[in-house]
Amino acid sequence: MIRVIEVGPRDGLQNEKTPISTELKLDFIAKLAHAGLKEIEATSFVSPKWVPQLGDAAELWPQLPEGPRYSALVPNVKGLERAISVGCHRVAVFTAASEAFTLRNINMTIQQSLDGFKDVVEGVRAAASQSFVRGYLSTAFECPFSGRVSVVDAARVAESLLELGVDEVSVGDTIGVASPREVRELTSALLSLAPASKWVYHFHDTRGTAIANTAAALELGITAFDSAAAGLGGCPYAPGAGGNLATEDLVYFLHREGLETGINGEALAQASLEILKALGKPPVSRAQLASLASCASSQMQ
Amino acid sequence: MIRVIEVGPRDGLQNEKTPISTELKLDFIAKLAHAGLKEIEATSFVSPKWVPQLGDAAELWPQLPEGPRYSALVPNVKGLERAISVGCHRVAVFTAASEAFTLRNINMTIQQSLDGFKDVVEGVRAAASQSFVRGYLSTAFECPFSGRVSVVDAARVAESLLELGVDEVSVGDTIGVASPREVRELTSALLSLAPASKWVYHFHDTRGTAIANTAAALELGITAFDSAAAGLGGCPYAPGAGGNLATEDLVYFLHREGLETGINGEALAQASLEILKALGKPPVSRAQLASLASCASSQMQ
Repeated sequence: MIRVIEVGPRDGLQNEKTPISTELKLDFIAKLAHAGLKEIEATSFVSPKWVPQLGDAAELWPQLPEGPRYSALVPNVKGLERAISVGCHRVAVFTAASEAFTLRNINMTIQQSLDGFKDVVEGVRAAASQSFVRGYLSTAFECPFSGRVSVVDAARVAESLLELGVDEVSVGDTIGVASPREVRELTSALLSLAPASKWVYHFHDTRGTAIANTAAALELGITAFDSAAAGLGGCPYAPGAGGNLATEDLVYFLHREGLETGINGEALAQASLEILKALGKPPVSRAQLASLASCASSQMQ
Repeated sequence: MIRVIEVGPRDGLQNEKTPISTELKLDFIAKLAHAGLKEIEATSFVSPKWVPQLGDAAELWPQLPEGPRYSALVPNVKGLERAISVGCHRVAVFTAASEAFTLRNINMTIQQSLDGFKDVVEGVRAAASQSFVRGYLSTAFECPFSGRVSVVDAARVAESLLELGVDEVSVGDTIGVASPREVRELTSALLSLAPASKWVYHFHDTRGTAIANTAAALELGITAFDSAAAGLGGCPYAPGAGGNLATEDLVYFLHREGLETGINGEALAQASLEILKALGKPPVSRAQLASLASCASSQMQ
């Protein structure tokens, strides 16, 4: 069984200007749960000033439909306190492999961001026995501001995250540039630090390489991947960055390779239609479009 | 050096209803040549009754810009005669691995189509010492009408094409369903019949797997791939089938893997803009969109 971690409700929505109601977010998440998604990053307890779209995190969290395991991004201890106050004990913290990126994105050096996580990790561990902490490692291959990131630099920050006691590290190709060769190189380095169960890849499909990268990572034993339904989202601070790998494309690929996810591809293809409509965006996931076209042609016959 | 065989002007345009002028086709092809494409399937000498869009083949062929090697699809001896009359000696013939597909697509059994090719191959060999014949093998993985195609069935038709004396076989995932596992299985079978230089893959990116499939084929030694600029085209007889693998996505991937193509990605991203405009289609190639966005953001700065 491959873990597919749905990040659409958080990563996919955080930069969308059109306000989405809490009700519609809950409907989207319920449809994802219905399609069989078992891990969903539902929101972010970042300041509503910075990300107004997810300003309803405390209102949304207690209403999440039962079934999936949910997580939320927390930027710092203040965000963690808000999360804990509504019973959220699965949290994600965010840093990057590129100094230029963290400086522009979260206004900190990498070390400052890591220092800030200590209290977050300790705080959530103290708050609940069933806590879970994910560390995001963005720009693991290339930074939009400072160019290529070496395997050594990416692995060093990944190791720092592990030393802080995170349960897993989500390793991001934030601007969607990597190809399988680089994925193999970085994966080999990561697996020398910790077993495959500690690593998740977060690929962007900006240049069409995300599925090939997933295939390369799978071959080396990685079994968990982030994706966003309909390919929602991207990176606000990365010029020209397109969307996250679409969950529909990931799931189609995994199933065709004979791997199980527990997800129903047809239900998944439908799950994002309302939210796409609200955002005024057409579907861009290839597998989603193919699934929808197939439904349409069945209906015509 | 990886061979990238551009099929946009033929495969990409053949099913487009909006008539494209000979002049605009020549402009498109000149831009592809300028971007470094060295092999281009320029048109088809099929009856204008069947494919009105390419009814200008005899007019277009003598005006093709110097540089690339061009080929044209010929359905039969009559088409070959038209091709030869304008000096076209690099031709492609078309069959499929699925009986249901050839029956619906060209109204022949597979064997009838192969029988018809004998005269085409002999004809072009007799007409020119520098002739070249490509055999298309469509639906090599799955047929939209009869489902999965076995490796044995696909390899059998591939072998028949080789026995007819074609110079290469272009093996198509016509409805864009395959994943790397199947590509490895079929490639192994094909390589047991003839060396890698005889085989070209023609992937469709209908469900987002084309680049992963290319990666799998490359690993087994395949060094030639068909693609269409901007992902133009698809298959008219395959319900729900999306476009060809976009040349921009293929070239980005190959370059990032450290492989050479002789193609300039930025010039390539521009090459199809006029024809997309004429067709009223937005770009769908991920790498093309990323390249165009990058240019736009450079201009803004």
